[in-house]
Amino acid sequence: MSIEHSDLTSGQRVLDWADQLARCSDSPDYLCRTYLSAEHRAANDQVAAWMRQLDMATWEDAAGNLWGRCEGRQPGPALVMGSHLDTVRDAGRYDGMLGVLVPLMALQELHAAGEQPAVPVEIVGFADEEGTRFGTTLLGSRAVTGRWDPAWHDIRDAEGVSLGEALVAFGLDPERMHEAARDPADLAAYIEFHIEQGPVLEDQGLPMGVVTSINGARRLRLTITGQAGHAGTVPMTLRRDALIGAAEIMVAMEQRARDQGVVATFGQLDVQPGAVNVIPGRVVLSLDIRSEDDRRRDQVLADWLAEVAPMLQRRGLELTQEALHQAGAVPCDAGLQDRLARLLTQAGQPDFRLPSGAGHDAMAMAEILPVGMLFLRCAGGISHNPAESVTADDVTAAVNVIKALLRAGL
Amino acid sequence: MSIEHSDLTSGQRVLDWADQLARCSDSPDYLCRTYLSAEHRAANDQVAAWMRQLDMATWEDAAGNLWGRCEGRQPGPALVMGSHLDTVRDAGRYDGMLGVLVPLMALQELHAAGEQPAVPVEIVGFADEEGTRFGTTLLGSRAVTGRWDPAWHDIRDAEGVSLGEALVAFGLDPERMHEAARDPADLAAYIEFHIEQGPVLEDQGLPMGVVTSINGARRLRLTITGQAGHAGTVPMTLRRDALIGAAEIMVAMEQRARDQGVVATFGQLDVQPGAVNVIPGRVVLSLDIRSEDDRRRDQVLADWLAEVAPMLQRRGLELTQEALHQAGAVPCDAGLQDRLARLLTQAGQPDFRLPSGAGHDAMAMAEILPVGMLFLRCAGGISHNPAESVTADDVTAAVNVIKALLRAGL
Repeated sequence: MSIEHSDLTSGQRVLDWADQLARCSDSPDYLCRTYLSAEHRAANDQVAAWMRQLDMATWEDAAGNLWGRCEGRQPGPALVMGSHLDTVRDAGRYDGMLGVLVPLMALQELHAAGEQPAVPVEIVGFADEEGTRFGTTLLGSRAVTGRWDPAWHDIRDAEGVSLGEALVAFGLDPERMHEAARDPADLAAYIEFHIEQGPVLEDQGLPMGVVTSINGARRLRLTITGQAGHAGTVPMTLRRDALIGAAEIMVAMEQRARDQGVVATFGQLDVQPGAVNVIPGRVVLSLDIRSEDDRRRDQVLADWLAEVAPMLQRRGLELTQEALHQAGAVPCDAGLQDRLARLLTQAGQPDFRLPSGAGHDAMAMAEILPVGMLFLRCAGGISHNPAESVTADDVTAAVNVIKALLRAGL
Repeated sequence: MSIEHSDLTSGQRVLDWADQLARCSDSPDYLCRTYLSAEHRAANDQVAAWMRQLDMATWEDAAGNLWGRCEGRQPGPALVMGSHLDTVRDAGRYDGMLGVLVPLMALQELHAAGEQPAVPVEIVGFADEEGTRFGTTLLGSRAVTGRWDPAWHDIRDAEGVSLGEALVAFGLDPERMHEAARDPADLAAYIEFHIEQGPVLEDQGLPMGVVTSINGARRLRLTITGQAGHAGTVPMTLRRDALIGAAEIMVAMEQRARDQGVVATFGQLDVQPGAVNVIPGRVVLSLDIRSEDDRRRDQVLADWLAEVAPMLQRRGLELTQEALHQAGAVPCDAGLQDRLARLLTQAGQPDFRLPSGAGHDAMAMAEILPVGMLFLRCAGGISHNPAESVTADDVTAAVNVIKALLRAGL
């Protein structure tokens, strides 16, 4: 039994595209599509084919990002919409991809109705946002903003292949990465559509929300040093157990983060020496702490360190910290926020706004353009997981909102 | 400048032997001597040579344990003294070895004075107590008690060599392991001299103490399952963070163990998925809990599980447990305790008794013989570490106590 494609809603057709794209994967068992891989090539080819069906001009830039352009009723700087086509390992089908496919479906609907967008529209599928292969995120969008750093060419993947070698193997020229940079004068704004990756819209019972800012994150590596010892022979009162100390400070941070409205996560923890019968002498753990307010985030961190210092001292433990990453919050353009909110209210939905806890290509693009983001409800807030899920009805609503934007212009 | 050996105290001479033995190591950088290795052979040969200087009969049994025998003034069942000659990786020089070298020095002093022990004395250097190579402890002493299990022959070391293959390579016959078993009718008792591996004697300012029992241990693998999620997008109040849950229950156990006088150690902890920016969905951790009173130990565990259950439920976390190991406390023979205590008081020291938190060959030997243990003070309670340290004066005192025992008999 076959179903005519035209019988499906636009949301169903977007999900069908997402299913097709998900076949471009390193593994038959799960979805993983990394920068400069054969699957990167296959995904670019697939999306380019869909773009050309709408008579869009398509090209791959010097960094492997895929672009498609549709002229508007008026000339002028292009509205750029897009997101990334790469994935984490064992990924869902929508994180990134919907930011390419939803605008593309909106253009297809205009095309099918014989309409043009108000202004030129470019859709970009960034080649690397997740950093899955080389551990450095936003490679695609940073090439487009002219922030590509040739020092990255020496970064090696898990197989020992350098980024420079991988570029050549993909057919790109490491010497010409600067050619991926776009002139902001040619572009009006960057608007990214993305699944929320969190549970807030679902909690609110809303399909979409306007992003106010992309939260700033700090990441630290904390090392707690005590003294290893025999699990049987050292009385509890004479121990300097690094893991129990780590446990106590993690619980203290959770309470403080709840109270102050920031999010704090200890995602990695390594115990040394790590034997069943040895008291941990050393623990290394990661802390990721985020807020839409950089000052509040830094204050929570400072207050926590002050709170735990006497406790660690009482336990005979030493804490050292190393900064891994620090990014300030990136606000979305106020005018674009209002424009997106008006589109929601015109579609009969409330003007609901929320911060983004996750990083996005829009963080990089904000270096050269005003950026706006629209979030879509996803089931359970789950992402980076094959259980990532959205409804066809929500996606149809999103296609309609984006179609209204493209038809009317900014 | 050379020092005449006879100018040294007996303790200094024992430490000199221990230094010589420490050269039998897998690595020039640290001490590691494992079962059925070339260094096992070298250590057996070295100790056997020292034994033969005292005209002792020496032999290696079917499991690779080294034995030496000295006849007494009276015939009859032999008093067995000994401990193990294998080590952990990056070990100290005294854990195990002193249990062989101190009685051997006591015999040497008797021999030099033209004396014989009261009854036949056998000194045994067990070939495997630590389980460093095959992960199964007490292999040497379990062969001597007739508890060798041929199923162990299939256990493989880190290089993939099976225990059966290693026995053959060492020149032993896997079919004849039962020949290592000793007939208890030939033996009077087993007395093991060992460093404390804990800080209690040092705290008390005493060189030696009599062991009351070898504490029973339970080891469990605990798995806490929550839900992984994005570190930036899931508000603190909507998380099911397995690591924070683990932290809270570890802190609760520490408090309970302190209050109840048991020792509890979480030595291993694995976080999944273990990424900086992902909320831990699953934590697997080990718990080692010991007491000289099996009932108290089991009660602490049960009370703790009851205490943490509602907390875990409130967090939406599931806890499962798997028993890894369970050993009841092994009491030392009351008559031997009193005998060793009398020797201490005769030497001008108080009758101080303490439990052993660590396992020892005496645990296995208790299956066939009355066992006694005498502990020696070690610096900072440190063992399983190159910083393991004892004083020559303490060792001299120990040689004198053991010499008095061998001269007078049980």
